[in-house]
Amino acid sequence: MTNLIERLLNGDIRALARVITKVENRADGTVEILRALFPRGGGATIIGVTGSPGSGKSTLVDKLASGYRTSDKPVGVVAVDPSSPFTGGAILGDRIRMHALETDPGVYIRSMATRGHLGGLAAATTDVVTVLDAAGRDPVIVETVGVGQDEIDIVRLADVSVVVLVPGMGDDIQALKAGIMEIGDVFVINKCDRPGVDKMERAIQAMLSLGPGSNDWDPPIVRVVATRGEGVEELRGTIEDCRQHFRNQPVQSLRRRGASKDRLMKLLEERLVQSALEEFSDEEFEAAVDGISRREQDPYAVVEQILERLKRLT
Amino acid sequence: MTNLIERLLNGDIRALARVITKVENRADGTVEILRALFPRGGGATIIGVTGSPGSGKSTLVDKLASGYRTSDKPVGVVAVDPSSPFTGGAILGDRIRMHALETDPGVYIRSMATRGHLGGLAAATTDVVTVLDAAGRDPVIVETVGVGQDEIDIVRLADVSVVVLVPGMGDDIQALKAGIMEIGDVFVINKCDRPGVDKMERAIQAMLSLGPGSNDWDPPIVRVVATRGEGVEELRGTIEDCRQHFRNQPVQSLRRRGASKDRLMKLLEERLVQSALEEFSDEEFEAAVDGISRREQDPYAVVEQILERLKRLT
Repeated sequence: MTNLIERLLNGDIRALARVITKVENRADGTVEILRALFPRGGGATIIGVTGSPGSGKSTLVDKLASGYRTSDKPVGVVAVDPSSPFTGGAILGDRIRMHALETDPGVYIRSMATRGHLGGLAAATTDVVTVLDAAGRDPVIVETVGVGQDEIDIVRLADVSVVVLVPGMGDDIQALKAGIMEIGDVFVINKCDRPGVDKMERAIQAMLSLGPGSNDWDPPIVRVVATRGEGVEELRGTIEDCRQHFRNQPVQSLRRRGASKDRLMKLLEERLVQSALEEFSDEEFEAAVDGISRREQDPYAVVEQILERLKRLT
Repeated sequence: MTNLIERLLNGDIRALARVITKVENRADGTVEILRALFPRGGGATIIGVTGSPGSGKSTLVDKLASGYRTSDKPVGVVAVDPSSPFTGGAILGDRIRMHALETDPGVYIRSMATRGHLGGLAAATTDVVTVLDAAGRDPVIVETVGVGQDEIDIVRLADVSVVVLVPGMGDDIQALKAGIMEIGDVFVINKCDRPGVDKMERAIQAMLSLGPGSNDWDPPIVRVVATRGEGVEELRGTIEDCRQHFRNQPVQSLRRRGASKDRLMKLLEERLVQSALEEFSDEEFEAAVDGISRREQDPYAVVEQILERLKRLT
């Protein structure tokens, strides 16, 4: 284990991949790994990129990642895809991504499925970011589909949050508003070779004018055509401006603090449930589920029973 | 409290609203309320309706709900909206909905914000469905934005899941596939007065043909124009067919069992975290968060500390 961690810290990509797999699967030794890596991290800029399916955010993230490779540092990407109950993961997405960037070991892309994380997706994502950060990846780009609580929790990890929209989504922006619009530090209009770009920009402006305009930062709107790489360099500049702007402001430490709190809560959830279920045999648990689904038992009583069992442990 | 529950069981709408507010806010007495109501429910058909922002699913749900009012039973709707970090809820949505149906006490619509539920949104939604079910609402329609783990968890509650799409989303269907496409029992193409309906239908068919075609049930595709009410009656018929088909099949009890298990896990999470934090003062907790965000403490160690504290309770 120590050996594996050492190799990871020395930049060994296979070790990195193995550690991430362990952590994502909550394999034995996960906590030890994370405890060893946690103090080594904290240096990376975390960039969140979020947008609807079809907004082209994966392509944009690939181009962004390549752009950061002009510096010396290796880059990490965590792509969180809504996963398939059939396949357990976004296999198609993976395949496309690998094709584009597989030749550059300086860009490590990891797709994460959204199902089957005991402590929830946000917890698993946080841990994978911790690993990439400790492994010296900087920036670490976290890409998510931008609706739903999990996604919002994930975006809260980021130092800079980028929201990707496309022209012609004008009607949808109203609906999106309540979700991701308000967490964006930078807005991107992708596919700017399509009609409706000005209309989209006005819609974003209108939406932003409703918000509380916080942190002395007016979220800029950057136009790109990700497939052709147009505007991507400007976007990198804007992200850097935003990071610099927030760098020494209270908002930055508040965000990091919020992320730390979220993380602690998620870990606590995961660990408590795990401990409690260790004291309740699988048979007991399944029998309780049967009872509940036949409405012979109520779940609230079962939970109290499990809690009592846990407390009487020592 | 007993009085409030009695009034709810007798169909008093104010009592219903008050109980739901209590349950959603996890007010004192929530567990007692839910324990009293849980055995009274189980009769309602739970219909899940899910679709992207802009798919018109709210309008569709309103029309569906009105349609069910031709029977004698009152109907319940839980609308789960991605909530705003600013406002804490989907205020705009609420206002529109109230206007359309506020005159019919037989349709009770409740919007739920996605933020701020201790045990998570899926747990809170389950509990609100329990209340509506016990109050004699049948069907209970649960409406969600269809991406993200929370939404998938919520849809798993449903006896029949309806996925709403619109023409012109053809490109997006690929991306949606991994998420909601595979949990649909019935597909709706809304806004069928727009071009691209046939193309959309072929895209859905193609997507479905990739799935494992389970339960001897080929998900039908229903065309509607929700704003004009066109196709809504047919949709009700299709939902009923689906319900009847699943009714006496193992898949139905398996689903209900899966929902019971999810529910038990979520409740357990919520209750354990709550109990653990009762043993850790706010000051201690906040100090730990500060330590973590300065990387002086690691969150994994803090979690073990809290767990030990909880175990030593009795």
